[in-house]
Amino acid sequence: MAAEATNVPEALRWVGDAGGHLELLDQTRLPLEQEWLACQDVDLVIGAIKRLSVRGAPAIGIAGAYGVVLAAGEAARQRLSPAAAKAHLLVRAEQLADARPTAVNLRWAVERVLAVGAGDYSAETLLAEARAIHEEDRRLCVAIGTHGAAILPAGDVLTHCNTGALATGGIGTALGVITTAWRQGKRFRVFADETRPLFQGSRLTAWELVQEGIPVTVLADGAAAHLLSTGRIGACIVGADRITANGDVANKIGTYGLALLAAAHGVPFFVAAPSSTFDLTLATGAGIPIEQRSAAEVLEPLGVRVAPEGAEAFNPAFDVTPARLIRAIITEHGVIDPVTPAQVARLVRPR
Amino acid sequence: MAAEATNVPEALRWVGDAGGHLELLDQTRLPLEQEWLACQDVDLVIGAIKRLSVRGAPAIGIAGAYGVVLAAGEAARQRLSPAAAKAHLLVRAEQLADARPTAVNLRWAVERVLAVGAGDYSAETLLAEARAIHEEDRRLCVAIGTHGAAILPAGDVLTHCNTGALATGGIGTALGVITTAWRQGKRFRVFADETRPLFQGSRLTAWELVQEGIPVTVLADGAAAHLLSTGRIGACIVGADRITANGDVANKIGTYGLALLAAAHGVPFFVAAPSSTFDLTLATGAGIPIEQRSAAEVLEPLGVRVAPEGAEAFNPAFDVTPARLIRAIITEHGVIDPVTPAQVARLVRPR
Repeated sequence: MAAEATNVPEALRWVGDAGGHLELLDQTRLPLEQEWLACQDVDLVIGAIKRLSVRGAPAIGIAGAYGVVLAAGEAARQRLSPAAAKAHLLVRAEQLADARPTAVNLRWAVERVLAVGAGDYSAETLLAEARAIHEEDRRLCVAIGTHGAAILPAGDVLTHCNTGALATGGIGTALGVITTAWRQGKRFRVFADETRPLFQGSRLTAWELVQEGIPVTVLADGAAAHLLSTGRIGACIVGADRITANGDVANKIGTYGLALLAAAHGVPFFVAAPSSTFDLTLATGAGIPIEQRSAAEVLEPLGVRVAPEGAEAFNPAFDVTPARLIRAIITEHGVIDPVTPAQVARLVRPR
Repeated sequence: MAAEATNVPEALRWVGDAGGHLELLDQTRLPLEQEWLACQDVDLVIGAIKRLSVRGAPAIGIAGAYGVVLAAGEAARQRLSPAAAKAHLLVRAEQLADARPTAVNLRWAVERVLAVGAGDYSAETLLAEARAIHEEDRRLCVAIGTHGAAILPAGDVLTHCNTGALATGGIGTALGVITTAWRQGKRFRVFADETRPLFQGSRLTAWELVQEGIPVTVLADGAAAHLLSTGRIGACIVGADRITANGDVANKIGTYGLALLAAAHGVPFFVAAPSSTFDLTLATGAGIPIEQRSAAEVLEPLGVRVAPEGAEAFNPAFDVTPARLIRAIITEHGVIDPVTPAQVARLVRPR
């Protein structure tokens, strides 16, 4: 069977030529509604990233790359001088890169598009680079899936948040490993942490797996320890928003706890991410900024107020899993195993 | 300050004499609405227990005790012969005791009321015993609170589910320890796991703490590991639905995972429960039946469908925390420390 099926959902697409626009599948509405958001300017892209209409470290990188193209379009429409257009582009790029602080792919992609445009900030040049990032991500996902499927242990699989087609430009990272193994004929059930506060597991991961025909069972995040104690889980596998030089991994809140629970039950814990997720300027995860999000996400799940007035909320969007808890990190270049600074340096080149 | 304030909410109350009825504060509507359910017959009590309108191991025990009184009233209204009335009572008592399988207090209380009625199943006799159980639970909570407050370490406190006035006939078990320590002048913030799937932490624990004037911060269950890593949590404290002879504890799903996370961060993990929660007929937690609840609780949080059709759910209501992860168990008779079969036997008498 082909490793790339046709029923993979798309998180985002560029419509038209260099004067065109970005369309994002609004992930806040999934799985009940499939609605595309048309982003004609940079503010709409930034808003969509902050609101999580597009999320997943690789996908927001791609969205940021296309956002730079939209910035060039804004300059053109305003008939700015070349110097003013360049200044506009740099300001807008910085705003895009700052839209979410933890995932490093966003800044990486924005800076890569800007770099190729040096001296030639035409929308055509920028769009070609953004398209290249998008296409590369599609191929990276296939490579990650293949490397990961080769080492995925037998047994059911437990994952957290969403790391599939909706989070990337291709079949996904951790979920790409899962779908690749399934397409190779391996059989298992996927257990998906619902992933409070935003339910990416039940809304997005379960939706992708149902479309793929892979059996999926959703659980409350607090049920993971009991599930692991049953012995049926062969592996945990998650994505990453930033990985430091020593292999520490920032990822969706709940990942660190899951890694500790997996370790307590002797279940191997894998991370799957493209090399653009690595930030070799940071020695350890202690340096990663952790985005704090609104109290309403915790106190008003799905828009329904559950907590009383007067209650506060603790709502970090990410946590940091230390390298010692990670069995291996799966990248497009191969598998980092054991997770040590030397092994990271072997597979990931500084930019 | 008095250990028993007047602003403690009530979970349930008996209205009238032996021909009266049970009223339950409908905990599925809290904190937005405070509505009392009038239970005139046993079926209404069983329904309320299953639906979790009344929950918390001690509180459902008290509800079950009053339920036996209602069964006597049913027999009287049907003008059954003494033999038929006794048979009716035994059938109804068994139905009550089976309403939820994991908490042992329910069966304990139902059987205690039945035992006192042996030979005299008049509603008056049964009501007196049910009232005695209710009043005893109020005093047990005070004793647990006092024993627990004496050993509660400095620092903020992390708790799971609801173990307060709403879960008992008094000030609560784990939450009773917290409020007792607060009233003694200790100062701290309480972090409350929201406790998916039913949000008892955000709906009930936060509500009780706000009423008490104790600072409370709600977090998604998956954020507990990150919170523990900050070092600000001095202790975790939870309740119990059943404790076996070796000190293994069945409690709300998520408790076992929290205990593992606390151990990984060197934070002491306490359990607070009355001796009626112990089941000395079971040697270890492996023998405790774990209630599985409906998939809808996971897939349709707060009645809002989030998962796609085709996704299954894993929804155990409880998990089992092994004794080795528990620093001490706080009972009305004192503190079990270390948690060993011998120390359990020292404080808890077989029935």
